[in-house]
Amino acid sequence: MGKILRVDLSSGKIAEEEVKEKEFRKFLGCRGLGARYLFEVKRGADPLGPENKLIFMTGLLTGTGFPTAGRYDTVAKSPQTGFYGHANSAGFWGVDFKRTGFDGIIFEGISPKPVYLLVEDGRAELRGAGHLWGKGVHETTRILKEELGEKFNVACIGPAGENLVRYASILNDLNRAAGRCGMGTVMGSKRLKAVAVRGTKKVEVADPDRLKELIRETVESVSQNMLKMSLENFGTESGFDMVNAQGGMPTRNWQEGVFPSGDKINGPALADRLLMGNKGCYACPIRCARLTEVKSGPYACRTEGPEYESVGALGSMCGVDDLEAITYAHHLCNDYGMDVISTGSTIAFAMECFERGILTREDTGGIELRFGNAEAMVQMVHGIARREGIGNLLAEGTKRMSERLGRGTERFAMHSKGLEFAAYDPRAAKIVGLSYATSNRGGCHIDAYVQLQAFIGAPHPILPEDIRDPFFDPRSEDPILGRVVKETQDAYAAVEGLGMCKFLGGWMMTADKVAEVVRAVTGWKDFDEREFRRCGERIYNLERMFGVREGMNRSHDTLPKRLLEEPHPSGPAAGEVVHLEPMLEAYYRYRGWDQNGIPTREKLAELDLLDLPMG
Amino acid sequence: MGKILRVDLSSGKIAEEEVKEKEFRKFLGCRGLGARYLFEVKRGADPLGPENKLIFMTGLLTGTGFPTAGRYDTVAKSPQTGFYGHANSAGFWGVDFKRTGFDGIIFEGISPKPVYLLVEDGRAELRGAGHLWGKGVHETTRILKEELGEKFNVACIGPAGENLVRYASILNDLNRAAGRCGMGTVMGSKRLKAVAVRGTKKVEVADPDRLKELIRETVESVSQNMLKMSLENFGTESGFDMVNAQGGMPTRNWQEGVFPSGDKINGPALADRLLMGNKGCYACPIRCARLTEVKSGPYACRTEGPEYESVGALGSMCGVDDLEAITYAHHLCNDYGMDVISTGSTIAFAMECFERGILTREDTGGIELRFGNAEAMVQMVHGIARREGIGNLLAEGTKRMSERLGRGTERFAMHSKGLEFAAYDPRAAKIVGLSYATSNRGGCHIDAYVQLQAFIGAPHPILPEDIRDPFFDPRSEDPILGRVVKETQDAYAAVEGLGMCKFLGGWMMTADKVAEVVRAVTGWKDFDEREFRRCGERIYNLERMFGVREGMNRSHDTLPKRLLEEPHPSGPAAGEVVHLEPMLEAYYRYRGWDQNGIPTREKLAELDLLDLPMG
Repeated sequence: MGKILRVDLSSGKIAEEEVKEKEFRKFLGCRGLGARYLFEVKRGADPLGPENKLIFMTGLLTGTGFPTAGRYDTVAKSPQTGFYGHANSAGFWGVDFKRTGFDGIIFEGISPKPVYLLVEDGRAELRGAGHLWGKGVHETTRILKEELGEKFNVACIGPAGENLVRYASILNDLNRAAGRCGMGTVMGSKRLKAVAVRGTKKVEVADPDRLKELIRETVESVSQNMLKMSLENFGTESGFDMVNAQGGMPTRNWQEGVFPSGDKINGPALADRLLMGNKGCYACPIRCARLTEVKSGPYACRTEGPEYESVGALGSMCGVDDLEAITYAHHLCNDYGMDVISTGSTIAFAMECFERGILTREDTGGIELRFGNAEAMVQMVHGIARREGIGNLLAEGTKRMSERLGRGTERFAMHSKGLEFAAYDPRAAKIVGLSYATSNRGGCHIDAYVQLQAFIGAPHPILPEDIRDPFFDPRSEDPILGRVVKETQDAYAAVEGLGMCKFLGGWMMTADKVAEVVRAVTGWKDFDEREFRRCGERIYNLERMFGVREGMNRSHDTLPKRLLEEPHPSGPAAGEVVHLEPMLEAYYRYRGWDQNGIPTREKLAELDLLDLPMG
Repeated sequence: MGKILRVDLSSGKIAEEEVKEKEFRKFLGCRGLGARYLFEVKRGADPLGPENKLIFMTGLLTGTGFPTAGRYDTVAKSPQTGFYGHANSAGFWGVDFKRTGFDGIIFEGISPKPVYLLVEDGRAELRGAGHLWGKGVHETTRILKEELGEKFNVACIGPAGENLVRYASILNDLNRAAGRCGMGTVMGSKRLKAVAVRGTKKVEVADPDRLKELIRETVESVSQNMLKMSLENFGTESGFDMVNAQGGMPTRNWQEGVFPSGDKINGPALADRLLMGNKGCYACPIRCARLTEVKSGPYACRTEGPEYESVGALGSMCGVDDLEAITYAHHLCNDYGMDVISTGSTIAFAMECFERGILTREDTGGIELRFGNAEAMVQMVHGIARREGIGNLLAEGTKRMSERLGRGTERFAMHSKGLEFAAYDPRAAKIVGLSYATSNRGGCHIDAYVQLQAFIGAPHPILPEDIRDPFFDPRSEDPILGRVVKETQDAYAAVEGLGMCKFLGGWMMTADKVAEVVRAVTGWKDFDEREFRRCGERIYNLERMFGVREGMNRSHDTLPKRLLEEPHPSGPAAGEVVHLEPMLEAYYRYRGWDQNGIPTREKLAELDLLDLPMG
């Protein structure tokens, strides 16, 4: 049914392999199929060594024309967590790649010199990238398009990936990022600069007429959707005000939950001051991306963004309310190829260390690394990407940095399993704490996209019907939240496995409807909501098992003490901490895992996952 | 079943009258029952003369403990439109009044001297109000509470009502306004300063256990509702950003649709800068009211608000982006007892006249009445309430003012039937234009609360199921919008007839559920969704017939030429005008009215309204 490329970067050998239909039916594609292939990596392998693999994988729906189905995933053992890592991205790259006739690529080994992979309609070739090494994402993209032609689409790393910044990202279509878990770092460690693709083949579909109907129906049904309209107008910053109003906006490295000048950096401020237009990814009726321009001053730039998470990490976490500086720093992160969330979070952590005297002006090379210092924040972005001065330490990320600094800093080192958190404080909505703590890839906010329900009260149509209407309070510690987190993690694993965007697939469609789309695309006549959920659960357990193989257990499913023990000092969530353990217990029960957080044999048998190579 | 007071202010005579159960079942209460009684006013009566009546009426659910069911309505022939007028309000006054044992009051005639009515547990008494005349709402309330006791609740007028400003309002609980249609003007013309009430009787309910269950269920079901959470956090300004982003925010007297510094006056700006807390009306789980404080400067005040409509009318319509000045002007409007929407709109109209040279500095007494001049806007509020200088002209409202000024000003005199519009530009969402044009009380935005669906995409659960999901585009001119407007007008007439808040009754409940509540309260075992809708349609037709009796027809169902002929110059709705006629035609068809906008005999028969005194 499918075909992937296997590229041995050490030897330069490229091979093609078939992917059987039953593999797609089990794992759907993207992060699901990617995770299955990741078990080829042997246990204990160094994430930055030749034994790690970097997998690019598209989904079953990618490129079929179904709304938002243009995504691809990058999968590897994460240099941030040492567990399963993945990051997915949209734009058009995934579709352009799939149109070459391939579904994915597995990169192995390490190239002796910088290279890029060129894939064009059924053929692939490694080429020297010496002339691109050291260049930013935007210039790299421009040069490759000049050399190969405008129709080529480029996914690449910037200097951050080359310099092995632990949280380097991979960018495609200039500003679309596979941001988290250090996938760009793995790419840099392999000396792979870019993957340039061009495809003209049509993505085959079993029942094109039915699919066309479903596309029309879906576009129509979301056209007046409340979340769609909000995203269209304010992008991912749509929820900023609600999070801030409820005390959930991490401020000054999570010391507080209300950012006092939120009105300077929120969605309307962005719209009023910087917005030039909006933009959609492949086949997207939502178009949440912001085209922005800072017209003058030290932060002048034309870019896409910032996203909510950029404003949270580079803004409120750092105490910075200068929207132009945030936008510029976001733009730099994209050009250097660095995850915005981990970058901003780590800077915020360093700022608190500085204010507490744990870092000094001597350490920072004279920089006053204080909260609210926008210039210092921007300087840090440069320093991290280039590993210059104190930036070399920050480039290791919050977890490793706190381990090196010691002196009790782990208390306010804001990460789980080594991955920094997105900008939602779980003390204001406990369900978010459970989702951060249990995510297989670390402090991730989109494995279970629960903060939207928690802070905005938005419905979650992808959930099973009996928990779809939030009769429970996501801000509470109700044990039922264990089930809600499990079900969202599973449903989204399937949505992402298919190559769809969560905004549409999770917030605006029911599982029943998604299953119908899968039937139309694949011809699997009996693929139903039940199988959709089972696929999602299988993918989630599969990813968990990759972690378990590397030693993951309950002790890793936790949060920093700041969230568990330090009551919020002020605002609507004043006095709150997260009581994680009872929620975790309920979660494991709903998951069918043992109380050490390990999937039971029965669960693995149920999901047809007994054949995993656990060596 | 019920009991009302009839107070002849000319003679001072007070009588009690029974209201039969079948009247409640036909008209539900509040504006419904009030409209029925208004037919006592003889055709052609002067709204400010002794023949007009001012009716205070509570609803079937008022005071039963059901969430938000604390409203009362004021009904009279409107001095702004000459047609049917009503304005309702919440807070606690309606409940405190109903607990005296009465359901309503009909005021007739004109008192020879200022009086107030005192109602306490089954008895009523007129008292002299000479010492209150000339005083603001806040002082009047304070004095009456001092004289009568803290437990008395006061609904009263301020100087604007006394001075017969055409759009004077009635306020209760200090800052809750029955704002529109000049109900305070009618009260002033009758020399009735206040109605002070205290009741300790319990409101009787047929099935208290079932009602208790329904209350619990409703509170639970709305606790995580998206609109509820947004209203709780940002009050009625919740929608500001979406309206502005879509080009629907009337700016500089509707010359443009995007207010460029929206981020200075929107909900988050209010929350970040002025908000002290929020507050709910009787039995309200939503709590949208804002407790605010301007701490220093010329606009220092402690108040409630501003609401979205204040920010729209006193802010963007006037080109004013000074949130403190807007808050202060809103506060003044409440204390003077003047409708904020008509006040701000009329000032904006005057500003355009000034900028066009139609009004001069000579006319304004030297005031530079230009857009953006916050100080001039505040001065105008004082001037209107006191009828000082040019304020005397503005006190007549936009319609009469443009009639006096002539010179083509009617083109941009922004009202329908004499009532100024709320802050949603129909050129950005045509359905709003149809709702403004067809409202019985003039340019009203809440008869059919369609702008929420149009600008935010919010669901409208009170609608019939087949048009509940907005498969249609409310920004289009689709004929189906005629039906949507009809159905929302009807449904909301019933919701308001019952004494509920539209936020809960319209946006968060189905008609089926509301009917269930009515059954529990009244014991009318066969009252169902169908009867609920029929009651609403009856009320709407009844109100229309009051207008028809006064000469209302299709020619009144229109919009100013600015909306019909002047394309929006810029923003997302650039180039748009409202093509009203085809929508109007469809609307009349769905209504079962003739194409002159008159309910047919068949329709009146169907609604059991053939017995109306049309003399």
